[in-house]
Amino acid sequence: MNSESAKSIKVGICGFGTVGGGSYNLLQANGEEITRRVGCVIDVVRIASRSITSGDVDSTVNISNDPFDVVNDPEVDIVIETIGGFDPAFEVVRQALANGKHVVTANKALVAERGNELFAVAQENAVTLAFESSVAGGIPIIKALREGLSANKIDWLAGIINGTGNFILTEMAEKQRQFADVLIEAQQLGYAEADPTFDVEGIDAAHKLTIMAAIAFGIPLQFDKTYTEGISRITPQDIGFAKQLGYRVKHLGIARRTDNGVEMRVHPTLIPRKRLLASVDGVGNAVLVHGNAVGSTLYNGPGAGADATASSVIADVIDIARQKLAGLSKPLLPALGYLSMHDDLEVVSIEEIETEYYLRIPVNDVVGVLAKISSILQGFDISIDAVIQKELDSMTVPIVILTHKALEKKLNLAIAAIEALEDVSGEVMRIRVETFAG
Amino acid sequence: MNSESAKSIKVGICGFGTVGGGSYNLLQANGEEITRRVGCVIDVVRIASRSITSGDVDSTVNISNDPFDVVNDPEVDIVIETIGGFDPAFEVVRQALANGKHVVTANKALVAERGNELFAVAQENAVTLAFESSVAGGIPIIKALREGLSANKIDWLAGIINGTGNFILTEMAEKQRQFADVLIEAQQLGYAEADPTFDVEGIDAAHKLTIMAAIAFGIPLQFDKTYTEGISRITPQDIGFAKQLGYRVKHLGIARRTDNGVEMRVHPTLIPRKRLLASVDGVGNAVLVHGNAVGSTLYNGPGAGADATASSVIADVIDIARQKLAGLSKPLLPALGYLSMHDDLEVVSIEEIETEYYLRIPVNDVVGVLAKISSILQGFDISIDAVIQKELDSMTVPIVILTHKALEKKLNLAIAAIEALEDVSGEVMRIRVETFAG
Repeated sequence: MNSESAKSIKVGICGFGTVGGGSYNLLQANGEEITRRVGCVIDVVRIASRSITSGDVDSTVNISNDPFDVVNDPEVDIVIETIGGFDPAFEVVRQALANGKHVVTANKALVAERGNELFAVAQENAVTLAFESSVAGGIPIIKALREGLSANKIDWLAGIINGTGNFILTEMAEKQRQFADVLIEAQQLGYAEADPTFDVEGIDAAHKLTIMAAIAFGIPLQFDKTYTEGISRITPQDIGFAKQLGYRVKHLGIARRTDNGVEMRVHPTLIPRKRLLASVDGVGNAVLVHGNAVGSTLYNGPGAGADATASSVIADVIDIARQKLAGLSKPLLPALGYLSMHDDLEVVSIEEIETEYYLRIPVNDVVGVLAKISSILQGFDISIDAVIQKELDSMTVPIVILTHKALEKKLNLAIAAIEALEDVSGEVMRIRVETFAG
Repeated sequence: MNSESAKSIKVGICGFGTVGGGSYNLLQANGEEITRRVGCVIDVVRIASRSITSGDVDSTVNISNDPFDVVNDPEVDIVIETIGGFDPAFEVVRQALANGKHVVTANKALVAERGNELFAVAQENAVTLAFESSVAGGIPIIKALREGLSANKIDWLAGIINGTGNFILTEMAEKQRQFADVLIEAQQLGYAEADPTFDVEGIDAAHKLTIMAAIAFGIPLQFDKTYTEGISRITPQDIGFAKQLGYRVKHLGIARRTDNGVEMRVHPTLIPRKRLLASVDGVGNAVLVHGNAVGSTLYNGPGAGADATASSVIADVIDIARQKLAGLSKPLLPALGYLSMHDDLEVVSIEEIETEYYLRIPVNDVVGVLAKISSILQGFDISIDAVIQKELDSMTVPIVILTHKALEKKLNLAIAAIEALEDVSGEVMRIRVETFAG
């Protein structure tokens, strides 16, 4: 032990909901163990929340309802922001950083959409803005990408990063249930919000993907360029056909560096059943990362919950405390892990991606329609890997096709041409397929 | 960018086999990306190996056959030790640390068996001894335990941390093959050494478990107290019965903190088929960690190979480079992540553990033997969870029993009593069962 061990690190918490309360409780519960690790006490000295009352916390903690009380308290070293949203969270974080305080935030929307501005303020003030808890809850994926895999060029990553969506798809797969039906159950269980858009339409996942892609490839945060497609159109029938072909359907966030730039996309995806990622069920999260040296590594764990998210919040606090105690005058790492970013890497539009596809085509029971469809696909340089054609005794039957790799904009044209066929009785369902080989 | 960006970090490599050569090649291949991350060039200036020739590396690298040339080179900032074994590796590392150089080692035996001495030398000299690559190859598990999960009390961890053993068990399970048969194939494929003892008898896994347990619980490295049992007695029949009961057989390293102290044990283990860990097949590694806040997180990836191991070696080099460039005068973290260790935590002997058990009891075809066995188990406070009794038309049939939790020393007594029964025709096969629930 050294002379620094006598110091304590003073923490202020803004917001006292699930994550804020969880973070406070975790510091209380594991304080002794944390002190053994860090070499000093980490003390919560001030909490701001509209709902907190003095009975909720230790009497030594100052409480108020104004987060700027925390941000402007000269005693506070590290501010934990768990208010969520943009207003007042953005200004709370900005002001804290401008006041020379380190900030730990669990606010994925704030980081993904306004992180570039906030990182600049942090850098100007030589303080850390940490955000491990903003992606995949308790899984230390930011640290893995930024430090653990730092010797690699990251080729791609793919994550199940929304527990609500994964719970719904798991239930649909295991019990052949409809999306809308499972969604209601998820809402009753508290897994899904009353307005489920953020989760099921992929916006939450897109926030997290944006953050991971920026760190993986050293590019600025570009939420507005992330392609986002939800799971509400997936049917138990699609999940069944996928199973028959050896695949599972998962809602993935995928980022990939190609010769054309960077792909960032959130959409339902068929993945081979044998991949470990395909076996991640229920509300769990998992991220599969492929580096050019290490190959594929997978990180799995709880993506939400008070204690799991607090685990990442307090890990960030401990990192900052360790650096502060070591006497560092500025953060050890830049926010995205790159001192010299790849500013020239363009984000590729979804039309320009190349992948395999699952197509479910509702057709009238007519001989010869498969030949017409094959011919259209061939005309757009799309070759067929596998076909399921159901027995032809009902009026409308689906033809299911797995394609080899194709360019999305050509596939779009092919789908339009297929839908224009007289024998095709409705919209073509298209789900992208990723094998994650190698 | 700042003024430090002009500096370079000078690396020397001792040993130029798989890992040493891989580390050199990785710095060449990804040098530009690494420089963008770190802010300076990381240069290999000297390599010592008995086998290296000048054509193997860039002409700017000094080569020799004496590792102490590297260790005593005043220009070298960081020494990468990939010689393996103890002699001369121990003295090479000790001397490098004593000379004030940071050391990165992939040498799990050295860290597990002599790490306590070496960490003390590192601390005296205010330098880092890093060893991410010594456990689970390319998976950044040391960083996860020491930093990513630092807000937790770690309750337990369990890992598939020997790829050779996992390959053998996977082949036995998938193809109902005998251990000895698959071992020969593993040797032909280069997965197993000519002398496979280190891998299949669990010594290699025990080295890695010892290291992980020390970091997870903040205890000194205690390899000699790690219980070690290999997989050579496992039969396809056991794997088949396990499957019938809903389990897979894996060779695990398990560390657990209980009220009595710390358990450290490597042995074949039945785990529920539904756990993600049970689906980690082939030469892959995976570690499941349970923290009191985060719950269970799993880390999966390649446990060996030149590039994967080099990924972790160079990640350690980058961590040290970042700290050096930040001007730190001593390591940011203690080697095991604790400034104040849990020196009072005792290692629990295998006799004192409490777990569930799989028992395969070869019996003569005699009515009433199950009743006798049940009665013996009951006498030692061991209750039965499930039984498989094959049809009684052959002379010798196995009775397979799953027990509820029992104390190992009582189970040993029960097994001795069972083996003494007249109707029991041979040794009882015992495999520990872990559910990893919660």
